[in-house]
Amino acid sequence: MTPSSLAASLNPGSTIGILGGGQLGRMLAQAAARIGLHAHIYCPNPEAPAFEVASAQTIATFDDREALQKFARSVDVVTFEFENIPLEAADLVSEQVPLYPNRKALEISQDRGVEKAFIKQLGLNVADWWPIDSADDLANALTQCAAPALLKTRRLGYDGKGQLALDQNSDPAQAFEHIDHQPSVLEKKISFEREISVVLVQGSPNQIDCYDLPCNLHKNGILHSSTVPSGVPEKLDQQAKDAAMKIAAALDYRGILAVEFFVKEDENAPQLIVNEFAPRVHNSGHWTLDACSCNQFENHIRAVAGWPLGATTRHSDAQMTNLLGAQVLDWFELAQHPDVVLHLYGKAGIKAGRKLGHMTKISPIGAKIQTN
Amino acid sequence: MTPSSLAASLNPGSTIGILGGGQLGRMLAQAAARIGLHAHIYCPNPEAPAFEVASAQTIATFDDREALQKFARSVDVVTFEFENIPLEAADLVSEQVPLYPNRKALEISQDRGVEKAFIKQLGLNVADWWPIDSADDLANALTQCAAPALLKTRRLGYDGKGQLALDQNSDPAQAFEHIDHQPSVLEKKISFEREISVVLVQGSPNQIDCYDLPCNLHKNGILHSSTVPSGVPEKLDQQAKDAAMKIAAALDYRGILAVEFFVKEDENAPQLIVNEFAPRVHNSGHWTLDACSCNQFENHIRAVAGWPLGATTRHSDAQMTNLLGAQVLDWFELAQHPDVVLHLYGKAGIKAGRKLGHMTKISPIGAKIQTN
Repeated sequence: MTPSSLAASLNPGSTIGILGGGQLGRMLAQAAARIGLHAHIYCPNPEAPAFEVASAQTIATFDDREALQKFARSVDVVTFEFENIPLEAADLVSEQVPLYPNRKALEISQDRGVEKAFIKQLGLNVADWWPIDSADDLANALTQCAAPALLKTRRLGYDGKGQLALDQNSDPAQAFEHIDHQPSVLEKKISFEREISVVLVQGSPNQIDCYDLPCNLHKNGILHSSTVPSGVPEKLDQQAKDAAMKIAAALDYRGILAVEFFVKEDENAPQLIVNEFAPRVHNSGHWTLDACSCNQFENHIRAVAGWPLGATTRHSDAQMTNLLGAQVLDWFELAQHPDVVLHLYGKAGIKAGRKLGHMTKISPIGAKIQTN
Repeated sequence: MTPSSLAASLNPGSTIGILGGGQLGRMLAQAAARIGLHAHIYCPNPEAPAFEVASAQTIATFDDREALQKFARSVDVVTFEFENIPLEAADLVSEQVPLYPNRKALEISQDRGVEKAFIKQLGLNVADWWPIDSADDLANALTQCAAPALLKTRRLGYDGKGQLALDQNSDPAQAFEHIDHQPSVLEKKISFEREISVVLVQGSPNQIDCYDLPCNLHKNGILHSSTVPSGVPEKLDQQAKDAAMKIAAALDYRGILAVEFFVKEDENAPQLIVNEFAPRVHNSGHWTLDACSCNQFENHIRAVAGWPLGATTRHSDAQMTNLLGAQVLDWFELAQHPDVVLHLYGKAGIKAGRKLGHMTKISPIGAKIQTN
């Protein structure tokens, strides 16, 4: 018997199982605790930052069937903080207990090729792309593309990892070698005017709501900052929300879903191109912690626990900036800024590019925040 | 050697020791984690709600010298969530590690008689009062008072416990019997127009800041709700802040300090009467969690860790209402209100009058919140 869905709302005192123990798992556990739900974190890393704020911990790998089953039996629902949970682990867990977001969302988001085909089939725009399984595929694709492009592994890429910028003069064999001959996609580089994302929450089929859209700035493939309001025209804003809700509907979704878009200047009107989606809480939604009464983490927990969704209303303008690697050493100075809310993830060890915290500048609605 | 004060700011990754593991300790631990500090909770109650959100736990009584010493050695600074920590425990701990707020604040706040004398000596108003050590003392005091009065134990009273309302017709022997012959004070009942409190944070001697004052409503001796803005005239507001800062200065204070006042209508101008102070985070400051960028819990942690204080600025109007006993069963309905932020403390077992959570209604500044 597969307990495919929750029969009712989980009472306070119930336990949310969370696969993954990074900063997203940590902030999910904190959100659960705030509304009287316990969190059980499952993570292979004994130093996982989520452990210290959760009521129960399992240190085990995602192929440890016994540990997964024991974990599933000890919780009332399972969710995850990242989309690269092996499907076998998700399946094993969901034999015992409901899993939200569902397997379909997980499966599609794990493969860039499948994801792009899925989005396109919904009538939404994606960048031109070619599946790549060999250096020959790549050579052909580069010719067809005839423009700067990005080679991205189909699986396990994040924060710019598993990506390579190419142009027509690039050597296909060398490039394919560089990504370890992994199944990939070649993606035509979009010359975009800006990047935005929709962070939405879907509860029961009739309950869906979007947070205000942030304008996102990436540096070296890693999110640098997210600013709300985004400054995009209202019509485009609504188009993006409609596109994201279309994806959620097609996935029969439950939880927080983040959809990233490029905004491309066109002769007639700006055009939206879907970059990718993430079936989880998202870095571009961290500003909701300090600018909304119900943040993305609490709303994700509410959704997977079958609770009424919280309001996505924004009480302040906000700009979230990630603190990567040694930037976190500026904590004392940042803590002095009266309009900065500081978040540190309690990770031991500073590595370049590692997400160790973030800061949110908040200001009254309508007061100007500079996008840097 | 007594490490009387912190030599420097504690780096992220340091550990804050917290004596007491109720909801205040829980919210302190959550605030510490958010800024990358670990929390070690010391509490005799194995079911303490703070344990599940802290990185370390000690279950031991406050007279367990060995456990206290071990705890003190494992942390970088110690604070407490309630003022009835035995002084012997505080002293033992502070032999090893700085303790904030200091012993003086703890000692004075533990005895209503000492507290009132201390406040009066600072030139601030307190209600007329008489020390009571016997039924005869009480008989005399009732005659002198010649008005409705409250008999309160000098020690260990909270949330209306250890209190008895009396008038001239009350039987002194019976009343003193009722409070188990404990050393007490008789306090002339103030017919006040309203109750307000100042929640201030003091860091280093030059760093002090007050949150906006809430107007507080008590029911059956327990805080029912706190509303900001309070509606008191600006002059009175400033007088209350000045009085609270005077108390902080006299205590050589560090951390959050809460001072409760009665506002009494007078022929000429409203008069402020200090009810009591609490050397800790305070129920009347819970609204700061949802209406300020740096809430009272984070500011307490910042102060005791030697960090720069966070801004006490308020981005929203707020009304906090406690959820006592069975009121918490309304969680589902409350979770549906778009302007309500819900906080549940994860306590097992519903007892009448027990603080199991609170809710904060927030609204844009200037939009009217009804005080009920």
